[in-house]
Amino acid sequence: MKLSWHRRNLHLKHPFQIASVRRPETDDKQVLLVTIEHKGHVGWGEASPVSYYSQSLDSAEAVFERVAAMLGDDPFALNAILDPLWERFGEEPAAISAIDIALHDLAGKLVKLPVWKRLGFDSSRTPLTSFTIGLDEPAVVRQKVLEAADFPILKIKVGTTADEAILAAVRDAAPDKMLRVDANGGWSETEAADRAAHLARVYRLELIEQPTLPGCHDALPELRRRAGCPIVADESCRFPRDVPACAGVFDAINVKLSKCGGIRRALQMIHAARAAGLGVMIGCMVETSVGIGAAAQLAPLADWIDLDGHLLLADDPFEGIGGHAGRLTLNDRPGLGIVER
Amino acid sequence: MKLSWHRRNLHLKHPFQIASVRRPETDDKQVLLVTIEHKGHVGWGEASPVSYYSQSLDSAEAVFERVAAMLGDDPFALNAILDPLWERFGEEPAAISAIDIALHDLAGKLVKLPVWKRLGFDSSRTPLTSFTIGLDEPAVVRQKVLEAADFPILKIKVGTTADEAILAAVRDAAPDKMLRVDANGGWSETEAADRAAHLARVYRLELIEQPTLPGCHDALPELRRRAGCPIVADESCRFPRDVPACAGVFDAINVKLSKCGGIRRALQMIHAARAAGLGVMIGCMVETSVGIGAAAQLAPLADWIDLDGHLLLADDPFEGIGGHAGRLTLNDRPGLGIVER
Repeated sequence: MKLSWHRRNLHLKHPFQIASVRRPETDDKQVLLVTIEHKGHVGWGEASPVSYYSQSLDSAEAVFERVAAMLGDDPFALNAILDPLWERFGEEPAAISAIDIALHDLAGKLVKLPVWKRLGFDSSRTPLTSFTIGLDEPAVVRQKVLEAADFPILKIKVGTTADEAILAAVRDAAPDKMLRVDANGGWSETEAADRAAHLARVYRLELIEQPTLPGCHDALPELRRRAGCPIVADESCRFPRDVPACAGVFDAINVKLSKCGGIRRALQMIHAARAAGLGVMIGCMVETSVGIGAAAQLAPLADWIDLDGHLLLADDPFEGIGGHAGRLTLNDRPGLGIVER
Repeated sequence: MKLSWHRRNLHLKHPFQIASVRRPETDDKQVLLVTIEHKGHVGWGEASPVSYYSQSLDSAEAVFERVAAMLGDDPFALNAILDPLWERFGEEPAAISAIDIALHDLAGKLVKLPVWKRLGFDSSRTPLTSFTIGLDEPAVVRQKVLEAADFPILKIKVGTTADEAILAAVRDAAPDKMLRVDANGGWSETEAADRAAHLARVYRLELIEQPTLPGCHDALPELRRRAGCPIVADESCRFPRDVPACAGVFDAINVKLSKCGGIRRALQMIHAARAAGLGVMIGCMVETSVGIGAAAQLAPLADWIDLDGHLLLADDPFEGIGGHAGRLTLNDRPGLGIVER
């Protein structure tokens, strides 16, 4: 099998910012697109390495350079290929995710089945996705909410001193939408429970994601009790081994391919979460339809999905994720069902 | 898809007895064999319902009668088929397991891939299986051990007052073999730690399975510490939801298809176990090569396997599980790779 990769510059429709990363607002984003070729078929994968998980485009490319000779000749040999990658490059899950996704796409194309069907999932079970509104001035947030009129569920980035002003602007523009908030660990432990209880009540929140920083979980029992809505772990739950400790602390986990290392790892996390009585959200980074399309294959297993990364792009180089107004439609094309525009 | 089933009488090479079931020794066994037909392909499944999990041939057949009309027309729609079965017949995992196995066999045949390959497993990782020696008089046990000369690993059924005499007979006949013991919950909580520590040391045990009854786990922390070998949950861990509570109490879980409800459920348990830091054994009932062949597909994910049910039979109606002397060879035939003799 032949592995190739290239960097791709993407442009966002709006600048995007979240609470945990204090960087200048960005309106572009680079991802790594990979292909694995085998017997005339091409599997696509995508890596979205992020600095707050200590990964970069450079570090992911360094993995690809060493992996290229390790892929062998059997695209179905998922574990035989991926297990050694985890042993050698375990700190680079975004890169491994790209390989895992490309192998799933390729294997699906070889047996002429969509990934979701090959894995036995029920595509009719796909929940509606939320649409994410990044941190911004309340007036800009209000404008974004109006532009997102088609989406019945919004996920609002919070985690700063402007939370109340932002949510007031959101509710003003969208009095009846389902609202989720994601603090990206931006709430301090001392005020998190008060803030969660207040915001959940006043702004009728469906759920709260990652209120405090990973490891700072002491406030969560009181926060969960007082907020009265599900509390979802994101940064606190990266890998399967993080799942058991989330039980009793969080109500659910947010599973992202680029964070955990691909479809196989995501499945392990989902199964571990269900066994522990935890709910499951499938989330994403800002990614093209390749990365989002891969995550969408798992949507039938989720309680909530937040798969809008491709919708934030002005220039997604791929297409194939159907649906509108929050509905994602898994198509019947082999593999991921994603094609270049 | 057309579901059919029939009872099959099997004969054991030796009468078989375990500690938790005080019944007359049996030298025969009935299982249910099922087929699911679709477009000229036939998928085989098998149910081994057991009374100590409150199931029977009758109760499993009653499920099949009601399921026959619920299968639909898409053998890949595993979750869409199985989820409603769990909702309606959740107390009959052996019956659901047979359906799950037959669907896996069928889907593999339709895409012309062995189940292990379709699921991405590395067949070269399959551990050696143990060969089980049932409860019996020490002299008979000794004779069975001599007859099992080809097998490098034995699993000895214990859990009665004769444990010491049995293990002495085993060690006399097999001084150097790897020995596991399975008490099937036969040790009382008051004596379990002493007994485990003594037997593990004197007879050099590799592991101890289910020393005390399910729910009677108070003795296990001391037992684990003093035995110095892994302690494996079997009856204490039936379903995915049982896995998290095994962490910190046991070292590993024994996953059996007929106990948990099939390949899909087994995978969920394995992933949950790994996330919780638990080891994994794949075990079986007394079953034909259909049931054992299905469990063998998961063997590459296990630390230990105990897949000898078909080897205990005098008249296995199927063949296809290759290997000898404890080695199971996963073949390259589509589906389970099992055919009628």
